[in-house]
Amino acid sequence: MSVCFNDRYLRDFVAPHELDYLAPQVRLAHDQLHGGSCVGNDFIGWVTLPADYDKEEYARIKAAAARIRQQSKILVVIGIGGSYLGARAAIEFLHGAFTTALADKAGETVVYFAGNNLSGSYLRDLLTLCEGKDFSVNVISKSGTTTEPALAFRIFRELLEKKYGKERARSRIYCTTDRAKGPLKSLADREGYETFVVPDDIGGRYSVLSAVGLLPIAVAGADLDALMAGAAEMMEATRDPDLAHNPAYRYAAYRHLLGMKGKQVELLACHEPAFQLMAEWYKQLFGESEGKDHKGLFPASVIFSTDLHSMGQFIQEGSRLLFETVVDIGDDGASVPIGEDPENVDGLNFLAGRDYAFVSRKALEGTLLAHVSGGVPCGVIEIPDRSERSLGGLIYFFEKACAISGALLGVNPYNQPGVESYKRNMFALLGKPGYESLRGELEAKLAD
Amino acid sequence: MSVCFNDRYLRDFVAPHELDYLAPQVRLAHDQLHGGSCVGNDFIGWVTLPADYDKEEYARIKAAAARIRQQSKILVVIGIGGSYLGARAAIEFLHGAFTTALADKAGETVVYFAGNNLSGSYLRDLLTLCEGKDFSVNVISKSGTTTEPALAFRIFRELLEKKYGKERARSRIYCTTDRAKGPLKSLADREGYETFVVPDDIGGRYSVLSAVGLLPIAVAGADLDALMAGAAEMMEATRDPDLAHNPAYRYAAYRHLLGMKGKQVELLACHEPAFQLMAEWYKQLFGESEGKDHKGLFPASVIFSTDLHSMGQFIQEGSRLLFETVVDIGDDGASVPIGEDPENVDGLNFLAGRDYAFVSRKALEGTLLAHVSGGVPCGVIEIPDRSERSLGGLIYFFEKACAISGALLGVNPYNQPGVESYKRNMFALLGKPGYESLRGELEAKLAD
Repeated sequence: MSVCFNDRYLRDFVAPHELDYLAPQVRLAHDQLHGGSCVGNDFIGWVTLPADYDKEEYARIKAAAARIRQQSKILVVIGIGGSYLGARAAIEFLHGAFTTALADKAGETVVYFAGNNLSGSYLRDLLTLCEGKDFSVNVISKSGTTTEPALAFRIFRELLEKKYGKERARSRIYCTTDRAKGPLKSLADREGYETFVVPDDIGGRYSVLSAVGLLPIAVAGADLDALMAGAAEMMEATRDPDLAHNPAYRYAAYRHLLGMKGKQVELLACHEPAFQLMAEWYKQLFGESEGKDHKGLFPASVIFSTDLHSMGQFIQEGSRLLFETVVDIGDDGASVPIGEDPENVDGLNFLAGRDYAFVSRKALEGTLLAHVSGGVPCGVIEIPDRSERSLGGLIYFFEKACAISGALLGVNPYNQPGVESYKRNMFALLGKPGYESLRGELEAKLAD
Repeated sequence: MSVCFNDRYLRDFVAPHELDYLAPQVRLAHDQLHGGSCVGNDFIGWVTLPADYDKEEYARIKAAAARIRQQSKILVVIGIGGSYLGARAAIEFLHGAFTTALADKAGETVVYFAGNNLSGSYLRDLLTLCEGKDFSVNVISKSGTTTEPALAFRIFRELLEKKYGKERARSRIYCTTDRAKGPLKSLADREGYETFVVPDDIGGRYSVLSAVGLLPIAVAGADLDALMAGAAEMMEATRDPDLAHNPAYRYAAYRHLLGMKGKQVELLACHEPAFQLMAEWYKQLFGESEGKDHKGLFPASVIFSTDLHSMGQFIQEGSRLLFETVVDIGDDGASVPIGEDPENVDGLNFLAGRDYAFVSRKALEGTLLAHVSGGVPCGVIEIPDRSERSLGGLIYFFEKACAISGALLGVNPYNQPGVESYKRNMFALLGKPGYESLRGELEAKLAD
């Protein structure tokens, strides 16, 4: 299987009987999830998605991606939250931290993201990058009314219509939205934009393997078949209700037990800079699924060895509220040999002839041993490489682990009631009709 | 003054008398810092740096930056930790998240960073970006022997010498290193590379306003005079020992008091994507200064509104271990008006004619009120804009606050003994001469 969970560096912190005692609860959570009786069971379409996806739409996604790559030098993906993070994370995982610069240099289609913030300067800069380039837009919003993407879509749609004329602009707008209803779906039908579906039974943070993520990922040149096959493989591998044999469940169980012992922060660590956005995706998945009812581990992340020179001191010797989960990527696909320096200025000639991968491997091992000896429990998620197959497996692994972890915590892992609070306040302060009384109340507080 | 600390949304969580009781300790910390008797007083050169910098070197930095901008399309800055984060953070703060793509499009010199990790694929991709482009190198390392930058420098130096010949390569290598000793200084003197100084009395994480940060920042086109003036202004503004009148000390006092009440995670939040790397710089500053003796707040960060759709749920309703510090940037320098949509598809016509800045402001205010009502204490650091002057002020503000915060915590804010642990293990596992016995021990553990 493409994803393994290695608990070697957790055993000093969690005893075998603790896992044994938890196993029946894990099995119950498994049965409720697979039997469809779990809390939040309206949103568990992701469980079987790697096998049960819409094959006709899947073919259209590939065709649309090929068309976009042919017609445009830039694809602007407009979306926020689950309609943003998964696609961006997957693309950077596969193509690395320099993905946009490399695509630009190679003359390939560059994927940029908009509508995920309210910064005017971000938008202005992105508009500058689009100047003089053919571009297309993929707007992703189930409702079509979420403020950030809706405002960005207003601007990019107008720009497209100005640049290409209303008629030709139509073939450059791709809408990923509700199957049947909502203003974006109505607009797309009226204007003849091609549409893809945000499934009803899959929440935003679980949607990366639906059209939401797949279209941008395909435009960036990825092999969707391998991605889905990796996820399907992991779906099979995590179908076992037995805690002892299910890697996703073992990860979920350990994090639950460590949380109960006062390790309130999970630090997801990876030695590849390409993983940075995947860590953001993980933060959304776990933070939004578990952070409710005043519960949940705080999800944080670091990239090593970069952050060993910033957060390393804290991890080694700071407050003991952390445990670490290391994503160990076996092979990053690059061979960079270290040369011999006749003068040996830096004293590193003992590494001459070695590859960067060797040094990185020893840094990973040395860091694990250092952190464990500093009292930081370290779990290790092992994947073979940065291929689409490994990525699909890793995505499904985290999703499955999050579902079980949320069940152990006793929360609904599929809702996000707290996200409405800032939106309601923002609408009131912006003067949205219908919010007049809240507006008065908030403005009084601000003036206080 | 360019940086203010607004405690309006902290007052429900910390009573006035708590600050009063702490004021004498703050004054003591101030006196020890300014009198040079504090713990770690070998490393407090940063306190007076904005006034007492080497004017001759400063002029050379500007001249070198102009030369690099003229001679190269790419500057590769090689450094890790404090020799990486500050410069990159400053450049992105000033030029935004798309800084490299915008510079490339405008035909300006692009600043890339290397030697801050051990990823072969990162290096390979950066080498690809350099292909066919004129480039220069600024290697930053006090010792010249730190593994990550030393290995990267081997590769880029060889590439320069291959591309331009040994003679011409010399004028493209800039070394920021120890004033007098160490292998990098010796090499530079022997080869005739221009050198700049990593000051003896300023640690890496406090060094961004020395040559360490200034050369890359200047190459990116920034106004160094305004940057230093902003820092100098803040140096004056935070010279007042009185807690009631010193914004940096008030911030330090509040975070100390909140930490004692169980708020163990500080979440630095900003509504501008351009701030993302500054948040990383802040994490290094506070995490490495305070994370020792099993103490210290865990520093984390979010960018809003992006992360309101990922970590927002956790902040609003998850475990109550957080407090938030919001960096409020008054004016982001861009005007992007919202247009009228005749069909009002998204229902947002009530915003037509407004600017993005207005919506962003209301999102910031609405989020503050939402989080406070959810039980999250929120401090606000206010800066007027994303200018060099504000940046200089903000850098100094954080440095001064960190010094006092560390003193209140009873740690040495200037050392980082824990960073050696992973290095020692890594050297042993890499087979470095002299580490033979540790190597055996570690390999036994790995094989266990």
